Amino acid sequence: VTQGDTPSTGSTPNTQIRRLPERQVHDRAALDALLDAALVAQVAVVDEGRPYVVPLAFARDGDRLLVHGSTASRAFRVLAQGVRTCVSVTVLDAVVVARSQFHSSMNYRSAMVLGAFAQVVGEDKDHALHLLTARLLPGVDWQRPPSRKEAAQTSVLALALAQWSVKASAEDSPQDDPSDIDAPVWAGVVPLTHTWGSPRPAPDLPAGVDRATPRAILDWPQGRA
Amino acid sequence: VTQGDTPSTGSTPNTQIRRLPERQVHDRAALDALLDAALVAQVAVVDEGRPYVVPLAFARDGDRLLVHGSTASRAFRVLAQGVRTCVSVTVLDAVVVARSQFHSSMNYRSAMVLGAFAQVVGEDKDHALHLLTARLLPGVDWQRPPSRKEAAQTSVLALALAQWSVKASAEDSPQDDPSDIDAPVWAGVVPLTHTWGSPRPAPDLPAGVDRATPRAILDWPQGRA
Repeated sequence: VTQGDTPSTGSTPNTQIRRLPERQVHDRAALDALLDAALVAQVAVVDEGRPYVVPLAFARDGDRLLVHGSTASRAFRVLAQGVRTCVSVTVLDAVVVARSQFHSSMNYRSAMVLGAFAQVVGEDKDHALHLLTARLLPGVDWQRPPSRKEAAQTSVLALALAQWSVKASAEDSPQDDPSDIDAPVWAGVVPLTHTWGSPRPAPDLPAGVDRATPRAILDWPQGRA
Repeated sequence: VTQGDTPSTGSTPNTQIRRLPERQVHDRAALDALLDAALVAQVAVVDEGRPYVVPLAFARDGDRLLVHGSTASRAFRVLAQGVRTCVSVTVLDAVVVARSQFHSSMNYRSAMVLGAFAQVVGEDKDHALHLLTARLLPGVDWQRPPSRKEAAQTSVLALALAQWSVKASAEDSPQDDPSDIDAPVWAGVVPLTHTWGSPRPAPDLPAGVDRATPRAILDWPQGRA
């Protein structure tokens, strides 16, 4: 893996996939769809020479990826310095049961974004905080926005979607060796589904507040994971 | 984050959680339960000074974590050298809709394991390959095991569960500020469920093979993600 420039296509030496290149997806729309479906990103931080991976809530905002966290977080303080990072986002779609153990696998979509985070401040920070909530809780427009104190306790960082790659495996059927196809055994694909369960209203909702799930939440898209 | 020894408890300076320490779980059973539920681990690799995070299928084998991949994979070749790594495993359980944007959050379970992978060889490798399949496809005992050539193309690495931490958030109700509780708005918890969909038999199953989903697969535990 060698150094490359940072073109908008996302296809640079750093993000070329060497193994199974047929699984690489060059479509920016596929990146956006994955980032908009996933709820958590795994973010690499190298701190005093040691690698750490921290799971963070995130949101895509056009051509950048936003994360937020406490200003007291060590990982955020290190990331805010603009060190190199890698963000990995993965959604699992199915388990593939082949006739052979070797060809058994998972269907998945996975993105890698390389670069360095930069701190988001001022009005852009207010916009980013709003957008992070809007992505997590689509249509929920009744919440109290952050107070000045709450915003001050929150660090917001942005990473450009410049160097990225998407890998996906979406086998409709196991890719078995021809010599295994006639084995008298079951083979197939078992989908893994990510759906919303029944919302539980807070037990301390004041009298007079409708406990029924709001329409906006009933309308949340399925498949987020 | 500073260097620590590697006691079996997993409680070392490297894995002490500084933010929100009340969310830290010290129970080894909680680590095992999370690792046994999750299907993918996010593994840090530092290659020529740059951090990468790669999603890998994995399995817990007692006090170690096993991963496997192609011997041609650059990430596997680097990890096999015994460099420091961090493995992150996260399962999302719910979205928490608070009265305030600030207190909205996710319920999750997340593990971090620090250390260095070592190559698994010989009979132990055969055992590890068997176990990786058994964890992914519980009860599926009819598959052709790896040929000598397939096993030779596969690299198996193990990481001791020595330095680890588990964080979990499992709010039954949003943790709002007292001054927000009387707001006349809905608040609550929306569970995110991970379930198996309807298995699709391979279209090329030979005549005479029952297309119905085998009992072992119908019995797969829910909640894997």
